[in-house]
Amino acid sequence: MTDTSTPLQPIPEDFKDAVAFALGQYDAIRAFAAGAVAAGVSGVFLVGCGGALADACPAHFVLEAGAPFPVRCMTSAEFTHRRPATLGKGSVVLVSSHTGTTKESLAAAGLARAAGARVVAVTRTAGSPLAATAHTAWTYRSNDTVVPPRQVLLGQFAHAFLEAAGAEGDHAAVRTGYEVLPDALYSALEETEESNHALATALADEPVTYVLGSGPNYGEAYAFAMCHLLEKQWKHAAAFHAGEFFHGAFEIVTAEQAVLLLLGEDATRPVAERARAFLDRHTKRHHYIDTAELSLPGVPGAARAAVGPLALATVTTRFSQHLEAVRGHGPDKRRYMFRIDY
Amino acid sequence: MTDTSTPLQPIPEDFKDAVAFALGQYDAIRAFAAGAVAAGVSGVFLVGCGGALADACPAHFVLEAGAPFPVRCMTSAEFTHRRPATLGKGSVVLVSSHTGTTKESLAAAGLARAAGARVVAVTRTAGSPLAATAHTAWTYRSNDTVVPPRQVLLGQFAHAFLEAAGAEGDHAAVRTGYEVLPDALYSALEETEESNHALATALADEPVTYVLGSGPNYGEAYAFAMCHLLEKQWKHAAAFHAGEFFHGAFEIVTAEQAVLLLLGEDATRPVAERARAFLDRHTKRHHYIDTAELSLPGVPGAARAAVGPLALATVTTRFSQHLEAVRGHGPDKRRYMFRIDY
Repeated sequence: MTDTSTPLQPIPEDFKDAVAFALGQYDAIRAFAAGAVAAGVSGVFLVGCGGALADACPAHFVLEAGAPFPVRCMTSAEFTHRRPATLGKGSVVLVSSHTGTTKESLAAAGLARAAGARVVAVTRTAGSPLAATAHTAWTYRSNDTVVPPRQVLLGQFAHAFLEAAGAEGDHAAVRTGYEVLPDALYSALEETEESNHALATALADEPVTYVLGSGPNYGEAYAFAMCHLLEKQWKHAAAFHAGEFFHGAFEIVTAEQAVLLLLGEDATRPVAERARAFLDRHTKRHHYIDTAELSLPGVPGAARAAVGPLALATVTTRFSQHLEAVRGHGPDKRRYMFRIDY
Repeated sequence: MTDTSTPLQPIPEDFKDAVAFALGQYDAIRAFAAGAVAAGVSGVFLVGCGGALADACPAHFVLEAGAPFPVRCMTSAEFTHRRPATLGKGSVVLVSSHTGTTKESLAAAGLARAAGARVVAVTRTAGSPLAATAHTAWTYRSNDTVVPPRQVLLGQFAHAFLEAAGAEGDHAAVRTGYEVLPDALYSALEETEESNHALATALADEPVTYVLGSGPNYGEAYAFAMCHLLEKQWKHAAAFHAGEFFHGAFEIVTAEQAVLLLLGEDATRPVAERARAFLDRHTKRHHYIDTAELSLPGVPGAARAAVGPLALATVTTRFSQHLEAVRGHGPDKRRYMFRIDY
């Protein structure tokens, strides 16, 4: 049982500024997209590792559902060693790394550049090695507020390409939804402080937690299991696509099995709803985070599907701090990461 | 602790016949690929659920590393609800379902057909609803030998498209490697009976097992965790890409943590080797299944990377029967699947 707790970290002071700083780069992102589309885009690759990869999932979804070119999302090491045959001059490769020093991501960016692709870095500062390898770099400056502005940059990338490619959709509504994100996401944080604390308390001592999501939210299910539970808390966890869950993994569910389902407001919501109906019936330890319950003030209805995954990632990142507090297991506790070579 | 065991099921009598029957459909598959390429292929989608989806992973890898068009691998429910914007007349959509009655896969095939795509069914019999929805169906007839012939059909699909598209590669060597598969895969089964029993014994009572793979073998890591451990044995498990493991999940590793790593002979082997070096150092419960240790008689060296994943899937499917025997937990034990509506 959990027997220690520590004070909850405050919401980072620079939260709104960091999100606003990312939003401020939209003109540069639109110019990049317009240039790429004018020259011809054969495909987009979203590349990164761990949380940076997971954060690309909503942008992947938006592009795949709307853009006239293919889009792939791959971990950096796989991208480099697999070396997609369609990678070339018409490719746009976005590589994301917080520090800009992740060796697999640097190798991926180098490979993409050598192949003649247009290479974008999404990274904390423009001075990082990754930024130097890329043709352009979009940044968020902060060490304390990483996920929300990174997701804003990635989302703007996706929507700028949709607009430049002439894809259908209410682009004005989506932009309005983005522009209010500093306050809307902050509201989401405040509205979920209680539920996040309750969720952290509920999951604190679970032996194994399964995390489910569909569409743009699968990435957050993955990040929740891999980064928040396994990496930061040393808690056993696994993520499954909410649809795939029924093709094997769901046999593990008993009345005592903890399962967390993430729900969004996108086209795949019926897949997540099916999982909710099952969990409601078959376990007492079902937990839900549903973007439909967030007020997201100022976000037009037509933009909720697009900005929902960003709110979800913001809330679950904050959840991680609640879990640290409840379990007394802070960010300095690592067995290997930042400690040894591997 | 495991306190019961049951007799090990024999290797299915129809094993070699089922693989040979799949091989016999290569001319039809080549004709299909030639027709599609002549008409123009904008992209390939590999669609299915659970084991059928996992079995498409090697074909996905082969196509992505060699073909001049994009290829995506998606669970059926996500394909339908996400509805990729590039799906259309130039698309080839392969939908795989053993029974040919999986409702999500039927919906995906229907969507693909309505969008004007060429639709292929990979299914047990040509009389299934899925086969009726598709333009053509490739079958393997057996209820006892499913994974190896299904992977042969999917692999032949990939290689036929590479040949038809004029992709580089030693196609003759790969074909030679395929043609000897009835005996080569049977040898792999016989050679691993002891190691599979030992592995089943080692994992029988582990509280949680992590399974890793890269490239074409990630699908088998996924199937091993989801279908063999979670679904069939009600054992906690999770699969991770061997490269992604270092970006979060590996923090769970202690000297007592069970981790199974699948290694192939493809271009991503260095990613798997890195994971092996880490596991050798940091846990005493590291297990490896390495296709390099299989004799695969008759398979040319130039074809080992291509047929290795098929051998791996064959061996791990057999492993599942060893686990059933060691744990006395047979295929009739299901909580939900085949028992209730969900």
